[in-house]
Amino acid sequence: TVRNLFLLPGDGIGPEAMAEVRKIIAYMNDEMATGFTIDEGLVGGSAYDAHGAAISDADMGKAMAADAVLFGAVGGPKWDDVPYEVRPEAGLLRLRKDMELFANLRPAICYPALAAASSLKPELVEGLDILIIRELTGGVYFGEPKTITDLGNGQKRAIDTQVYDTYEIERISGVAFEMARTRQNRVCSMEKRNVMKSGVLWNQVVTATHKDKYSDVQLEHMLADAGGMQLVRQPKQFDVIVTDNLFGDMLSDVAAMLTGSLGMLPSASLGAPDAKTGKRKALYEPVHGSAPDITGKGIANPIAMIASFAMCLRYSFNLVKEADNLEKAIANVLDQGIRTGDIMADGARQVGTVEMGDAILAEFKAL
Amino acid sequence: TVRNLFLLPGDGIGPEAMAEVRKIIAYMNDEMATGFTIDEGLVGGSAYDAHGAAISDADMGKAMAADAVLFGAVGGPKWDDVPYEVRPEAGLLRLRKDMELFANLRPAICYPALAAASSLKPELVEGLDILIIRELTGGVYFGEPKTITDLGNGQKRAIDTQVYDTYEIERISGVAFEMARTRQNRVCSMEKRNVMKSGVLWNQVVTATHKDKYSDVQLEHMLADAGGMQLVRQPKQFDVIVTDNLFGDMLSDVAAMLTGSLGMLPSASLGAPDAKTGKRKALYEPVHGSAPDITGKGIANPIAMIASFAMCLRYSFNLVKEADNLEKAIANVLDQGIRTGDIMADGARQVGTVEMGDAILAEFKAL
Ligand SMILES: CC(C)[C@H](C(=O)O)[C@@H](O)C(=O)O
Ligand SMILES: CC(C)[C@H](C(=O)O)[C@@H](O)C(=O)O
Repeated sequence: TVRNLFLLPGDGIGPEAMAEVRKIIAYMNDEMATGFTIDEGLVGGSAYDAHGAAISDADMGKAMAADAVLFGAVGGPKWDDVPYEVRPEAGLLRLRKDMELFANLRPAICYPALAAASSLKPELVEGLDILIIRELTGGVYFGEPKTITDLGNGQKRAIDTQVYDTYEIERISGVAFEMARTRQNRVCSMEKRNVMKSGVLWNQVVTATHKDKYSDVQLEHMLADAGGMQLVRQPKQFDVIVTDNLFGDMLSDVAAMLTGSLGMLPSASLGAPDAKTGKRKALYEPVHGSAPDITGKGIANPIAMIASFAMCLRYSFNLVKEADNLEKAIANVLDQGIRTGDIMADGARQVGTVEMGDAILAEFKAL
Repeated sequence: TVRNLFLLPGDGIGPEAMAEVRKIIAYMNDEMATGFTIDEGLVGGSAYDAHGAAISDADMGKAMAADAVLFGAVGGPKWDDVPYEVRPEAGLLRLRKDMELFANLRPAICYPALAAASSLKPELVEGLDILIIRELTGGVYFGEPKTITDLGNGQKRAIDTQVYDTYEIERISGVAFEMARTRQNRVCSMEKRNVMKSGVLWNQVVTATHKDKYSDVQLEHMLADAGGMQLVRQPKQFDVIVTDNLFGDMLSDVAAMLTGSLGMLPSASLGAPDAKTGKRKALYEPVHGSAPDITGKGIANPIAMIASFAMCLRYSFNLVKEADNLEKAIANVLDQGIRTGDIMADGARQVGTVEMGDAILAEFKAL
């Protein structure tokens, strides 16, 4: 087998975190004959500096052709004032849109060793395991018109447009129901149907999809504002949450913070299975940002990037055992009290990015 | 002085909570010569049952003419299937829009006696005092087009539109800066300028307003998703938060939940000062909903409604001492260990709606 990986480390701590994944890939190729090939490109501010665009057409082409894309992080103060169309985030948004990565999987799990680091009471987050399924190619992120118009008189008017079609809601809720079946079999759909027409349609289509094909799954509907509250009040009530692009952005960040493991959480963005091959386009990225304040210091936590690679093993290559082991290696290293600065605790041993990567690799080898 | 109050108790527990405010009003008229006159109307499901609309034109007229509107809550399963245009929430949205109540003030305070009830660790919420200023008459709540279209082929398309003009952002940020000056003098503005054009304009206008007129206030900008995270991580870092209608909806609910005092939080919705009289149109409502599950049982917590009336005393009638005392009366009653079921704690004395109202009134009289 040949397995093509395209790496887009991006800006800030992205490259440092990606280097730790490279070590794991090299080990797997050497010892497990996984046959990964690696190519690498530029995205975000580093692409802008090189090409004047947040991702070049050539790199977009490579991303489209790869079996999976590993993405680091984008952005930083250096590019705060570049034009809107070429800002670092535009690279990520183009990848999501052009690759049609409509399904964003964001697990919010609480590593037992880190429960105490949550701002919530430990009993509320111990054992937390939520999967947020966020729609990623529609809604207000991409709807047109999206403009700022000069009205004269010193007045401007900004417009963003939230658009959802039936099929978009159908396919994302299908992913949510499928995932639920592999877990606790419960889905909670969140929207604002009391205020938004897209919320009304969302609610109707999720309900119909459930009735048609997934009536064995338990389905609940919640207004998105109440959902945000409930995440803070009693997060363990949830199994799978399905929601739109913007609500998913907000809610998954709140959920990530609950776990006390923000620097630790991975995500997968998947396309539809190819009609012939069954393969899905896919991009894997940590939930954290580019952290310009700690860039280059060798102290960034690489766990979210490594855990994103574990998701890649699972969803793009069906290397389930390997994915399980890599996730277990991360948990074991945390149990051993090895910590980067962001998750440091009394009595733990503080390490840098490279040491953390080495510790996880060592543990992975031993499993 | 004559002071005209228009009461819209609404649905569910709204009327039960409002009854407790009526007792305070009666006492103030008798003993403090406050000269409140009271008229009452219907809103939400109860208005729909009576008139087929979520608020009648006659009641809208009374709301427009009143010095202040006190609003209870709307909605309930009984009206889940009424047409979108006349759903209970439409009454509230029409009040906000027609009265031009663009400034929604949502304090998120943590009553010391309730810090333990928060899902956050007590040290993170003790003494918490945030004021969220939410834009309330613009954005995706009211922008056009707002439609569901049948595309044929079984496909529908839902559209919502987020629209913001310069003047709308200017006036809401003005309110935020003014409020900050009476507090810790710090404002954090939240938007998604990395994805939304309205976020770009929001950021520009807040920055310009700050520079022009309020450069003495400390201003910070935060992406709304990061803002949601930071609210959970370290809520006390905030003083005043200013944000748009939809982000304000989500973020104020998350903030409310942090305090452990969800049933306790009031809000004020204010219009612009009248050019001649300086008076603002105003509506005061609890942040909680209509709670159909406990309606009619006499156990609802009236504190948010009473605290909303305290905001009314402060902002509509400049009865500052009276507002301070009413807020103090609430805090004292909580300190005495008197609790409704929703905030019950070990060793406290559980009471119903009426007893809670009586206890607060007794304390208010004694101050
Ligand atoms: C970087 C930004 C465009 C992005 C988003 O808003 O989707 C990020 O916040 C995320 O959640 O992946
Ligand atoms: C009832 C609903 C329309 C309303 C809103 O979304 O604004 C409520 O959630 C609120 O926050 O006041």
